[in-house]
Amino acid sequence: MGRHVSVARMNDTPINLYDHEKLAHAALDEAAWAYFSGGAADEITLQNNTRAWQDMGLAPRVLQDLQGGHTHIQLLGRSWPTPMLVAPMAHQRWAHADGEAGMALAAAAQGCGMVLSHQTSTPLQTVADLVQGEAERGPLWFQLYWQADHGALRALMAQIEDAGYEALVLTVDAPVQGVRDRERRLGPGLPLPEHARPVHWQAQPPTESAGLCAGHGNAAPTWDDVARLQSWTRLPVLLKGITHPLDAAQAVRMNLSGLIVSNHGGRTLDTQPASARLLLPVVDAVQGDAAVLVDGGIRRGTDVFKALALGADAVLVGRPCLYGLAHSGARGAAQVLRLLRDELEMAMTLCGCRTPQDITPAHLQWPGRS
Amino acid sequence: MGRHVSVARMNDTPINLYDHEKLAHAALDEAAWAYFSGGAADEITLQNNTRAWQDMGLAPRVLQDLQGGHTHIQLLGRSWPTPMLVAPMAHQRWAHADGEAGMALAAAAQGCGMVLSHQTSTPLQTVADLVQGEAERGPLWFQLYWQADHGALRALMAQIEDAGYEALVLTVDAPVQGVRDRERRLGPGLPLPEHARPVHWQAQPPTESAGLCAGHGNAAPTWDDVARLQSWTRLPVLLKGITHPLDAAQAVRMNLSGLIVSNHGGRTLDTQPASARLLLPVVDAVQGDAAVLVDGGIRRGTDVFKALALGADAVLVGRPCLYGLAHSGARGAAQVLRLLRDELEMAMTLCGCRTPQDITPAHLQWPGRS
Amino acid sequence: MGRHVSVARMNDTPINLYDHEKLAHAALDEAAWAYFSGGAADEITLQNNTRAWQDMGLAPRVLQDLQGGHTHIQLLGRSWPTPMLVAPMAHQRWAHADGEAGMALAAAAQGCGMVLSHQTSTPLQTVADLVQGEAERGPLWFQLYWQADHGALRALMAQIEDAGYEALVLTVDAPVQGVRDRERRLGPGLPLPEHARPVHWQAQPPTESAGLCAGHGNAAPTWDDVARLQSWTRLPVLLKGITHPLDAAQAVRMNLSGLIVSNHGGRTLDTQPASARLLLPVVDAVQGDAAVLVDGGIRRGTDVFKALALGADAVLVGRPCLYGLAHSGARGAAQVLRLLRDELEMAMTLCGCRTPQDITPAHLQWPGRS
Amino acid sequence: MGRHVSVARMNDTPINLYDHEKLAHAALDEAAWAYFSGGAADEITLQNNTRAWQDMGLAPRVLQDLQGGHTHIQLLGRSWPTPMLVAPMAHQRWAHADGEAGMALAAAAQGCGMVLSHQTSTPLQTVADLVQGEAERGPLWFQLYWQADHGALRALMAQIEDAGYEALVLTVDAPVQGVRDRERRLGPGLPLPEHARPVHWQAQPPTESAGLCAGHGNAAPTWDDVARLQSWTRLPVLLKGITHPLDAAQAVRMNLSGLIVSNHGGRTLDTQPASARLLLPVVDAVQGDAAVLVDGGIRRGTDVFKALALGADAVLVGRPCLYGLAHSGARGAAQVLRLLRDELEMAMTLCGCRTPQDITPAHLQWPGRS
Repeated sequence: MGRHVSVARMNDTPINLYDHEKLAHAALDEAAWAYFSGGAADEITLQNNTRAWQDMGLAPRVLQDLQGGHTHIQLLGRSWPTPMLVAPMAHQRWAHADGEAGMALAAAAQGCGMVLSHQTSTPLQTVADLVQGEAERGPLWFQLYWQADHGALRALMAQIEDAGYEALVLTVDAPVQGVRDRERRLGPGLPLPEHARPVHWQAQPPTESAGLCAGHGNAAPTWDDVARLQSWTRLPVLLKGITHPLDAAQAVRMNLSGLIVSNHGGRTLDTQPASARLLLPVVDAVQGDAAVLVDGGIRRGTDVFKALALGADAVLVGRPCLYGLAHSGARGAAQVLRLLRDELEMAMTLCGCRTPQDITPAHLQWPGRS
Repeated sequence: MGRHVSVARMNDTPINLYDHEKLAHAALDEAAWAYFSGGAADEITLQNNTRAWQDMGLAPRVLQDLQGGHTHIQLLGRSWPTPMLVAPMAHQRWAHADGEAGMALAAAAQGCGMVLSHQTSTPLQTVADLVQGEAERGPLWFQLYWQADHGALRALMAQIEDAGYEALVLTVDAPVQGVRDRERRLGPGLPLPEHARPVHWQAQPPTESAGLCAGHGNAAPTWDDVARLQSWTRLPVLLKGITHPLDAAQAVRMNLSGLIVSNHGGRTLDTQPASARLLLPVVDAVQGDAAVLVDGGIRRGTDVFKALALGADAVLVGRPCLYGLAHSGARGAAQVLRLLRDELEMAMTLCGCRTPQDITPAHLQWPGRS
Repeated sequence: MGRHVSVARMNDTPINLYDHEKLAHAALDEAAWAYFSGGAADEITLQNNTRAWQDMGLAPRVLQDLQGGHTHIQLLGRSWPTPMLVAPMAHQRWAHADGEAGMALAAAAQGCGMVLSHQTSTPLQTVADLVQGEAERGPLWFQLYWQADHGALRALMAQIEDAGYEALVLTVDAPVQGVRDRERRLGPGLPLPEHARPVHWQAQPPTESAGLCAGHGNAAPTWDDVARLQSWTRLPVLLKGITHPLDAAQAVRMNLSGLIVSNHGGRTLDTQPASARLLLPVVDAVQGDAAVLVDGGIRRGTDVFKALALGADAVLVGRPCLYGLAHSGARGAAQVLRLLRDELEMAMTLCGCRTPQDITPAHLQWPGRS
Repeated sequence: MGRHVSVARMNDTPINLYDHEKLAHAALDEAAWAYFSGGAADEITLQNNTRAWQDMGLAPRVLQDLQGGHTHIQLLGRSWPTPMLVAPMAHQRWAHADGEAGMALAAAAQGCGMVLSHQTSTPLQTVADLVQGEAERGPLWFQLYWQADHGALRALMAQIEDAGYEALVLTVDAPVQGVRDRERRLGPGLPLPEHARPVHWQAQPPTESAGLCAGHGNAAPTWDDVARLQSWTRLPVLLKGITHPLDAAQAVRMNLSGLIVSNHGGRTLDTQPASARLLLPVVDAVQGDAAVLVDGGIRRGTDVFKALALGADAVLVGRPCLYGLAHSGARGAAQVLRLLRDELEMAMTLCGCRTPQDITPAHLQWPGRS
C-alpha cells in the first residue's frame, strides 16, 4: 500500500481520508472503533477493497478541451450533482451525537446522496425533514433488511414513502452476520449506548427450523421475497450485495431499478474479492438495463473515477464518512465528501474527461502497480 | 496474510483458530512447540498451506432458499455429520494429558471424524472404546506407516480391525523424515516424556543397503506393498500424501477407497505447493472413482468450503485441533472444531449453499486477493 | 525493493544515487524536502517509477568485441555525448544557492543536456551564457507551461530563442496540479524563499468559468494551442507528459519533434503506471517519426540502458540531480550524472553493447525479479 | 522468503546453510564480509538467486522402488560421487587461514568437485597435491580470466595442466567488474591482507583505448579469444557466465565442453534474472551437446534437485562453502557440503528418484509459492 504520510499536526485540517481515519480512531472508544472499522474474519477482503482500487492504473488523455466540465449525472429519474452517496451504516449516533442527521446534512451540503440504514439511530422522518429543503442535494434513499414480520415491514415502508425517500435498497448479502472477530472479542452483543439504539429495527424472533445457523434469528430473503417487496411499493428498488453475474441477470429480469455491487465492506464473507474486481462482470451482465453502483474501499477521487470507468453509475462511500462524523460531526463528514469531490474533479481534469459521461474503460490500464 | 487481531484478554474464550495457536504456544514447552508447529526446512510449504486457501476468492450467490440446510455428507458407506476429521498426529499426550483420548472425544462431540496416528501415545483400543457409543459421531480411522516387519504389521492391523476402526490410512509421502530444522536444533532424538511414547510403534531396524539416506531406518513402501496391505485387510484403504495426478490414477486403478491430498502439513518436503493447489488435479484424475480428502493449512470455515468447492469430499484438520488440545485438553480441541463447524455453516449460508452437495467450483473466483 | 546499503560514513563520497538522496534529505528543510521529494496522493506512482525499472531483467550477450565503444547519440540534428538530460525542475535555488546555474554547469561538464524549467529561479539568459562555451555539452532546452496571456508567452519565447535554447518542451500532463498531500500539509502556498521565486513565471488569473477545478487558475492547453505554439517558433517543439499511444499518434500527425513519456515524476496523477511501463506503447505508436524520451524513476545506469532497450532515444533525470545539487551544489549534481554515466558504460560493457545503437529489446528479459 | 529460524545456541552445530552464513558474518571483519557476501548495485539479482529456487514447486512421486539409490553421475569422462562442485572464489585465505587448500580438502572429503579461482591465494600446485590422492573425490578444475599478456596466460595454463587439473573454466561474464556498492564503500582497492593476495594473478596494464570503461584495465575476451584458448590446451574448456540461448548455441558450435549458467552470483550486473530462471533456455539451446552446469543461490538440497530437474548436469556452490570455511576452516566447508548432500538425498527419496538420472522436469511444478 502507498505510504500515507503521518499526520504531523493533529490540530490542522486533515488533508486526506487516511487523516480522517486516524482522527476517528483517536475519537472513538475501543468498542465503537472495533465495530465501525472491523471486517470479517482475517479482514482480507477489507484490506483488498482499498488496495484493488489502488492497483488499477489510469490511462489519461492530454490536451482535451475541458471547458464547462462538471460532475453531474442523470440517474433514476433525477439529476445528481455528484455521482456519490453516503453508504448505509448502522448506529451513527454511536460515532457522534450528530448521527444520521449530521451525516445527511453533510451529504446534502456536498451535493451527495444519502442512504439511511434500516438500523438508523435517528428517526427517518427527522432525517428527511432536515434535507428536504436543500437545493442541489443528492438523492435520499432507505436501506432495508428483510423482516420475518411482513406487517411491520410494510408499515415501515409506508413511513419511508410518506417521508419522501426516493428509493428502497434491499440488502441481500447478509442472511446471517459474518464472522466478525473484532466484535466477537467484545463479548456477546454490541455495547450500544442508549441514544444509539436503532429506532426502526425490530429484533427478529429466533427461527425454529433446524437448518444452517439455526438460532441466529435470520430472516434470509429469497428472490420470491424480492418480488413481494417490489409489489408492496411504488418506489424504485435496488439490491445491495449483488456480485455474481448470474444474480445480476436475474435482477434485471425482475426489473429491479438498480444493483449495488458490494461485499458489505468486507464485514460479512471474508475472502470475497475486492468490490473493484467484482464490478465489471456485473456491469457486463446488466448491459445498461439497471443502474449499477458500487461500494467498498473508496478512499481517493481516483477510486471514484475508476469505478465510473469500469461502468458504475455512481459510488457509495461508507467508513470514510463515518470517520469524518466521528471526530467532528457533520462538519467532518462534509470535509470527507468535499475532499473526494475535489479529488474526483482533479482526476477528471488530469485524465482529460470533461464530464462523468466522458469516463470510459479506455481510461484504465492494467496493471497499475509494478 | 490477514491481520489477526491480537488476543486482548487471554482469559476469554478464544474466538478464532489463531487464538488457539497462541494459547498453545504459551502452554507448550519449547521442544513440544517446535515439534508440533514446525515444518520442513524454510517452512515455505507450511506457510503457503494457510495462505493458499486465503488467496482463493469466494463467489457467493444470494437470495437462495436455505430452509433445511445441513452439513451432512455420505462417504465410504456411512453418513457423516460434518465433512471434517481430525488429522493423524503423533504423540498427542506430549501436548496434553488428555492426549488421543481427549481428541477423539472432542471429535465425536462435534460430529467430526478422527484418524488415530500409528504413533499414538494412547492405546488404540482405549480410543475406540471411548467413542464407540457416541451418537452422531464421525468415522474412526487408523493411520499406518509401512513396516519392515510384516508380521508385526499384520498383528497390529488385526487389533485395529477388532477394535472397530472403519478404515486404514497408509501414509505414502514420508519414506524418510524431512529436513526439520526446528527439531534438529533440539539435538538428536525427540525429548519425548515417558507418557507420550508411541504405544504401537516398532522402532525400525537400520537398513543395511548402501542406498540413499542409508541408516535412516526407513521402510519405504512401494505400490506392491500397497497391494499387499489391501490383501491383508477387509477395511477400506486410503493413501495419504498422494499429490501427483499420475499417482492418483494409479491408486484408482488399484481400487483404493480414497486419497488424502496432503504435503504432510509442510513437515516433510519443503517447497511442495500448498495442498489447496494440489487438490484440483487429483480430483480431476480420480473422476469420482475414489474418495478425495485434503489436509493442510485449513484455519477458517471458508477454507473448508473452498476445499469442498474444489471437489474434496471432506477435509482433515491437524495442528489447530492439537493447539486446542494443548491448552485446554478435550475441551479446547472441541472448541476448535466447533468454531470451524460454525464458520463452515456461515460460509455456506453466505454463499447460498444449503448443503455440501450444493457447493461447486462456480462458488470460487480467482484471484481472491489483489 | 533492493536493499540499499546504508551510508556508513557520511563524510565519504556518496557511491550511489540513494546516498545522494539521503544527503539531500539531511541538507534540506522540511518544506523543501516535502516539495522536491514528494509525489501525488499515496505516492504509488512515485514508488512504482523506481521499482518498474528494477523489475525489468537484463539479457546480456558475452564475448562481443567492444573496442571503440562510446555513449554518443545523434538526436534532433546534433550529436549528444550521452543520452541523458537533466529534467526540468522548478525553484532550484530553493535546493541550493547554485540553483539552475549550477545544475546547467554540472550537466555540461558531464556531457549531459539540460532542460530549464519555466519556473526557473535563475534568469534563462544567465543559464544560457554559462554553458554556451562548454565543449562536449549536451543540448539546452526550455520547458513551458501554457499561459492564458499569449502576448506574455510569445515574449518569453522570443527571449528563449534569442538566448540560444535549442528546443521547447511543452508540458501537457498538468492542466491542474495534482493532489500533493505532503505539500498540502505545509499549508496553502509554498514557503518559497525570496531568492528562489520564479523569474519568468506569470501568476495566472483565476478562471471565471464554473468548470471542473474552477478557481485553480489553470490555463489548460489543447491540441489547438499546441499548433499555435508551433506556429510561433522556429525551434523544435516536444511534448512532455504524453503516455497514451493515441495521443502519441496525434503528436506525430502534427509533426512534433519529440515526445517525453512521463507521469510527471509521480507528482500529478497518482496510480498512473510507472513510466517504464508506458514507454513501449508510445515507441510503437511513434514508429521513429519523432524523438521519444522518457523520465521517472531512473536511479541506476542499468535503468538508462533499459530505457534505450525499450526504444527511448534518451532519458531525463530529475530528482537525483536535484539531490546532488541540494547537498553540494553544482559539484553534487555533477557527481550524480557522473555516477549514472559510469554505470551506463558498465551496463553496456556487461551486456555486450559497444554503442547505444547496439542496445535492443533483445537485451531485456521478463520478469527480472522472482 | 521463508522464515529462517534463528540460531538459538551458537555453540551448537549449524543445522542449515543460513546458520553457516550467520557464523561467517560473526567471524569475518567488515571488509571481508562486504567482499564475500555483497552483490552488484541494489543486490536484486543476489536476492533473486536464492528466492527463485525457493519459488519453484516440487512434484514428488510416491511409492517408487528406491533400492540401490545413489547420487553418482558421469560427466566429462569421469564418474562424480555427487553432482556438486565448489564454485571458483577469489582470496579464500582472506576468509580463513585454511584457504583454498582447506576448501579443496573439504570438497574431496564430501565427494564434491573444486574449481580453483584464477585469483587463488594458494598456489595451484599445493591444492592439486593435496587432493590428488583422495579416493571418491570430485573433479578438480581451474577458472581463468582472459589476460592481455598471452605469454603469461599460456605459461599459467601449462602449470595448470601439469598439476593435473582436469578442465579449464573461462569466465566470460565480467569484462569489467560490476557496480559493487558495498566494496565501493570500503574505498579504492580491497584491503587484502598480505597472505590473501592472489598468487597467480597478473595485474592488467591500463588499456589505452578510449572506449567504454577505459582505464578499468579490462582484457575483455571475444569469441576469437575463446578459440585461441581452446587451441592452446588439451583440457576440456567450459565457459562460465553464459546465459543467453544464442550464446549457448555459439558455444556448442565451437565445441566447448561445457557451459556454466551463472550471473556471477549477482556480483556483476544487477537485475539480471536469477540463475534458476536462466537455466532452462540454455539447456534447451544446448540439446545435450555440451555439459550444462549452474550456480547462484543454491542453499538447500531441494535447490540442487531442482537444478537437475531443469536439465543441469551438476551445480556449483559458492558463498555457502566460503561461509563454512570462514568460521571453521576446512571442517566448516565440509559441513556445508555434507548438509547439501544429505538434503539432496532426502529430496531425491521424497520425490521418488533413485538416482540423478531419474530426476526430470516432471518433478517440478509452477508456481511453488502462493
